[in-house]
Amino acid sequence: MSSVSIQPEQTSEQRPATGRRTRAPGDRSRARILEQAARLATIEGLEGVSIGRLAEATGMPKSSVYVLFGSKEELQLATVDAAREQFATEVVIPALSAAEPGRELLLALCEGYLDHVERRVFPGGCFFVAASAELGARPGRLHDRIAAYQNEWRTLLATQANAAYEHGALPARTDPGQLAFELGAILAGANILSVLHDDQTVIDRARTAVRTRLAAAD
Amino acid sequence: MSSVSIQPEQTSEQRPATGRRTRAPGDRSRARILEQAARLATIEGLEGVSIGRLAEATGMPKSSVYVLFGSKEELQLATVDAAREQFATEVVIPALSAAEPGRELLLALCEGYLDHVERRVFPGGCFFVAASAELGARPGRLHDRIAAYQNEWRTLLATQANAAYEHGALPARTDPGQLAFELGAILAGANILSVLHDDQTVIDRARTAVRTRLAAAD
Repeated sequence: MSSVSIQPEQTSEQRPATGRRTRAPGDRSRARILEQAARLATIEGLEGVSIGRLAEATGMPKSSVYVLFGSKEELQLATVDAAREQFATEVVIPALSAAEPGRELLLALCEGYLDHVERRVFPGGCFFVAASAELGARPGRLHDRIAAYQNEWRTLLATQANAAYEHGALPARTDPGQLAFELGAILAGANILSVLHDDQTVIDRARTAVRTRLAAAD
Repeated sequence: MSSVSIQPEQTSEQRPATGRRTRAPGDRSRARILEQAARLATIEGLEGVSIGRLAEATGMPKSSVYVLFGSKEELQLATVDAAREQFATEVVIPALSAAEPGRELLLALCEGYLDHVERRVFPGGCFFVAASAELGARPGRLHDRIAAYQNEWRTLLATQANAAYEHGALPARTDPGQLAFELGAILAGANILSVLHDDQTVIDRARTAVRTRLAAAD
């Protein structure tokens, strides 16, 4: 836990200078700020994501960060968008690419989530669990953005649980809506405990829970 | 502390003039501040629990709040202690008083937790889920206090799951450690979703999960 750092594993200097497409310097700065901001948010909360704090964390002038985002709230909203994109890239898209809709995809999504937490892509674990706990009871644009993205995840799990059930891939007594809820809750709960206690055995417990729940139909 | 003059809601007639008895209003002020602090923490985070913010929230002079707690960190630690006491009073003690150790107690603890979240005793739901998500990746005394109390809860669930299993009250294939983990994770996950989406049906889903898991042995 003491080794927690908001520094990404790769700095922009280590990254290849030219990617698939050339990005304007403003875009690169924006991406660099948002990467730091999402990591920082899982340690210090989205409340800690301010123009001054990100200027400090990235070594950029405060005026440059201000020009790119305009306000703390816009920076926070952009951070939530960037975290969603990263979650899609790391968890959702690989699962969608590799697995058949239904039980197999549900399993891939849950395992992808747990791998993502275990790898500590964000030092505070799942960005959206941290953000949901922080903003859950604070109405506003930031709350609504987080709730909308959290709902996308919840809907994805529910859709795949329904598909699995309709394909006959789950025991006939299964309630797919209940299954989707339980899987989502177990993932979120495991994330909180694994970060708080720095205890990876909790992730193994969650994997066992997921596999047991998604064992092939009787 | 005995000579401390504070500015509580009480009139001067109610306030003892001198001596050791001034500790009584000091205790009352302390309790009043901590009650507000715990509620505030589930909305704005423990980071929002500062001497200035609590003076504002309670209408007490900042100097009085300072005298009672001494520092922001001490105020935050006292808030965590007060939240634990409240959780014990509302959830743990009633369950321990009403239910037999083992399956019955495990069920009473889980249902007590969900009732507590549903009643919104704290506006942001479970204090310890919010605090765990906020402080999980921030080493320090506050993190350690929250982790210690969270561990008490985890241990209580595990102990009762073991007792239930040993009494033969759960199916023979049950892994009691796994069961305790899943129950705790489902409760925490349900709390986050119910607050974020202001959706009480999530609490019903969690009740179904708990009752199914704790159905009497085959």
